[in-house]
Amino acid sequence: MKIRHLVESQQLDVETIFALFKKADELRVSTEKSLEGKILATLFYEPSTRTRLSFESAMLKLGGNVIGTENAKEFSSAAKGESLQDSIRTVASYADIIVQRHFEKGSAQIAASVSSVPVINAGDGAGQHPTQALLDLYTIWREIGSLDNITVVMVGDLKYGRTVRSLCYLLGKFQDIKIIFIAPEFLSVKNDLKDYLKKHSILFEEQADLNKYLPQADIVYMTRIQKERMSDTEYENAKEAYTITEDNLSLLKDKSRLLHPLPHVEEIKLSVKTEQTDNRVAYFRQVENGLYVRMALLSYLLE
Amino acid sequence: MKIRHLVESQQLDVETIFALFKKADELRVSTEKSLEGKILATLFYEPSTRTRLSFESAMLKLGGNVIGTENAKEFSSAAKGESLQDSIRTVASYADIIVQRHFEKGSAQIAASVSSVPVINAGDGAGQHPTQALLDLYTIWREIGSLDNITVVMVGDLKYGRTVRSLCYLLGKFQDIKIIFIAPEFLSVKNDLKDYLKKHSILFEEQADLNKYLPQADIVYMTRIQKERMSDTEYENAKEAYTITEDNLSLLKDKSRLLHPLPHVEEIKLSVKTEQTDNRVAYFRQVENGLYVRMALLSYLLE
Amino acid sequence: MKIRHLVESQQLDVETIFALFKKADELRVSTEKSLEGKILATLFYEPSTRTRLSFESAMLKLGGNVIGTENAKEFSSAAKGESLQDSIRTVASYADIIVQRHFEKGSAQIAASVSSVPVINAGDGAGQHPTQALLDLYTIWREIGSLDNITVVMVGDLKYGRTVRSLCYLLGKFQDIKIIFIAPEFLSVKNDLKDYLKKHSILFEEQADLNKYLPQADIVYMTRIQKERMSDTEYENAKEAYTITEDNLSLLKDKSRLLHPLPHVEEIKLSVKTEQTDNRVAYFRQVENGLYVRMALLSYLLE
Repeated sequence: MKIRHLVESQQLDVETIFALFKKADELRVSTEKSLEGKILATLFYEPSTRTRLSFESAMLKLGGNVIGTENAKEFSSAAKGESLQDSIRTVASYADIIVQRHFEKGSAQIAASVSSVPVINAGDGAGQHPTQALLDLYTIWREIGSLDNITVVMVGDLKYGRTVRSLCYLLGKFQDIKIIFIAPEFLSVKNDLKDYLKKHSILFEEQADLNKYLPQADIVYMTRIQKERMSDTEYENAKEAYTITEDNLSLLKDKSRLLHPLPHVEEIKLSVKTEQTDNRVAYFRQVENGLYVRMALLSYLLE
Repeated sequence: MKIRHLVESQQLDVETIFALFKKADELRVSTEKSLEGKILATLFYEPSTRTRLSFESAMLKLGGNVIGTENAKEFSSAAKGESLQDSIRTVASYADIIVQRHFEKGSAQIAASVSSVPVINAGDGAGQHPTQALLDLYTIWREIGSLDNITVVMVGDLKYGRTVRSLCYLLGKFQDIKIIFIAPEFLSVKNDLKDYLKKHSILFEEQADLNKYLPQADIVYMTRIQKERMSDTEYENAKEAYTITEDNLSLLKDKSRLLHPLPHVEEIKLSVKTEQTDNRVAYFRQVENGLYVRMALLSYLLE
Repeated sequence: MKIRHLVESQQLDVETIFALFKKADELRVSTEKSLEGKILATLFYEPSTRTRLSFESAMLKLGGNVIGTENAKEFSSAAKGESLQDSIRTVASYADIIVQRHFEKGSAQIAASVSSVPVINAGDGAGQHPTQALLDLYTIWREIGSLDNITVVMVGDLKYGRTVRSLCYLLGKFQDIKIIFIAPEFLSVKNDLKDYLKKHSILFEEQADLNKYLPQADIVYMTRIQKERMSDTEYENAKEAYTITEDNLSLLKDKSRLLHPLPHVEEIKLSVKTEQTDNRVAYFRQVENGLYVRMALLSYLLE
């Protein structure tokens, strides 16, 4: 069944996922302008230049146009006490599709419930970021050649990081996946996510020794320790607990890939040269893949 | 006589108003791209996502393009001491038309006086907001079927609210209008506006009992109490002085309409469901009408 | 040799400069849409509405599209500790060309060194602003008819002003130029720039009496005293040290021209009427020239 809004990654079934990936592959080389005359509104209550520009570029490449605000929290009528519902109903009068980033979990669902046009969740607080998960999965598929029978090592902030959460929900739809979670203890993966994985027969382990598991990984999914979510002491202890260096990168198999939702800070200690020449470092290809996945998604929701 | 800039609603004569409304009606269903190659600059010294996105969407739908800033106060050379005149003359080199929102009354006139391209006032402090008045009037015309011989109940902040002011100036151009003003005493309508209405033979009364006058109204025009313009105590006393609830909405005739320039806060206490299903609630249709009126105005000024 | 990025004005040789000027002249009257399907990203870590809107308008007029942020410092991942290199590599995935304004000298070179698409420096702290120099030079060429054998009086903040620096580098490429520097002592031109001029056989003098040299000038290039770079006392002493008034404007030859990179504050004391009617006042034509020069540059770098 075709979805109308993309609020959380669980909504996507395997058939839709592969349809989107096939479309993304086509759009890499296409010059189709199928969204001419359509308008995308980007409503960012929390700034994210990377995600916003990715969606805006995707829309423009398909021939559409863009309106938006990068500072909805301060500049929109939210500052005057307007409800999110009213803001969405207003913007839905001006645009054919809305991409929303919001600081509160659940706000994407609220937006979708009143909008007369499709809403894409581009991050809702500690909630989800489904297009990030989709581009992560698309990158795994393109780089590894399969989404079944792979081992994914997830590292860093597994508690607050919404990209880990959204990606796990998607991985749960495939076969013979094994996930190895590696995090500082106070940032370990939450129980509800573990329950989800059990229910979907995904093998997972929680481990502490990154270097021991790097040789087994098909995918290493690094994430940033989010300074803004913890005390300074916690951050100082956690920020370099697990890092990728020139040394331990060499533990990865040639066919394995290092992914990261970006931005990265101290957890990646590779030189620009290694990033540019070592084929295992895939996170800038991952960024570019995001563009094609978002083009595919905009096409799908506006068709 | 064709106007070049739209600074205040009084500039518009009845003939021009109806020409704009006719054009707006056409543009609801048209796909004309008559502004291809034209550039709109939105210069917002005071943020307003609603108004800015409405103008930008209008321009894009007509095939034009948009440049702009949502934070001109902080980001433009105004912060370095540049005069508004110089800023406007600069932007007029880049664009074919300018939409300006400014925090100071009179600034739209200053901009218009030096600009080599048309300027539209999108709000100048306690001054005017003529396109809001125009979309209000267009909504009344579409919903009621006439602009003569109607009773308008205006409620809320009648002192500081520039939309009430701009709308009254427009209503002054029609026949057999009756306005009933209902406001907390310290927010009652100013004398200069009353003088204008007298001069233009518009009947008006100042009343206190909202529910008594709802059954007489063809249009109820609610406005927000603007917290940012008064003390906390004043706001607490005023904010719920006059509200529309499910109960008193039922006092309205079936053919009457509830309008609001939005955003609304405590003065409207209707459920989302009532807003979506009760045909008397017209403020989201009003928002959409704003898009078509602004398309018509951009076409008119750039023809 | 064709340049790929424009980081500093010295990169431009005389042949390229004249090719750009010829193209700019053509684009004044052309409606070519040669950049259709191309995307410009404007990344402004320091706000500048004038420069940003000029580039954006230039891109749109050539049929291209624009994405960007006017507040990259606060809104991009820079706030989360991401390196400039990573930000640039990300944005280069979304766009065909990047225009960057940054608060740190040298950052344009860093951006260019990692970007997979052309980068234009739109100001890097106390570094350079090469398109400003290019539009200054283009204005001199159009207004005076030649770039050789001219006398330029440069006035104001010659120490911190990066436009003076970038323009001197360009003037160094032409014949029989004479520059007269006039500045408060603590804002006089730096030694490295003097050394550059000597090396390129450009005559220059440092003088104190503005009115004495106005009659000799072909070009008077005024600049703003930058309050944000000095103490309040220094600013108070410097701000009106050298001004252009209705009186001393009359000392200029009829064929001479008054230029200013704008914004101007106290150093220009002319009425709006004089600015609009005295042909010697060229700084708003200079603004418009900036649009055509940037169109030419975008075309050149994206060809």
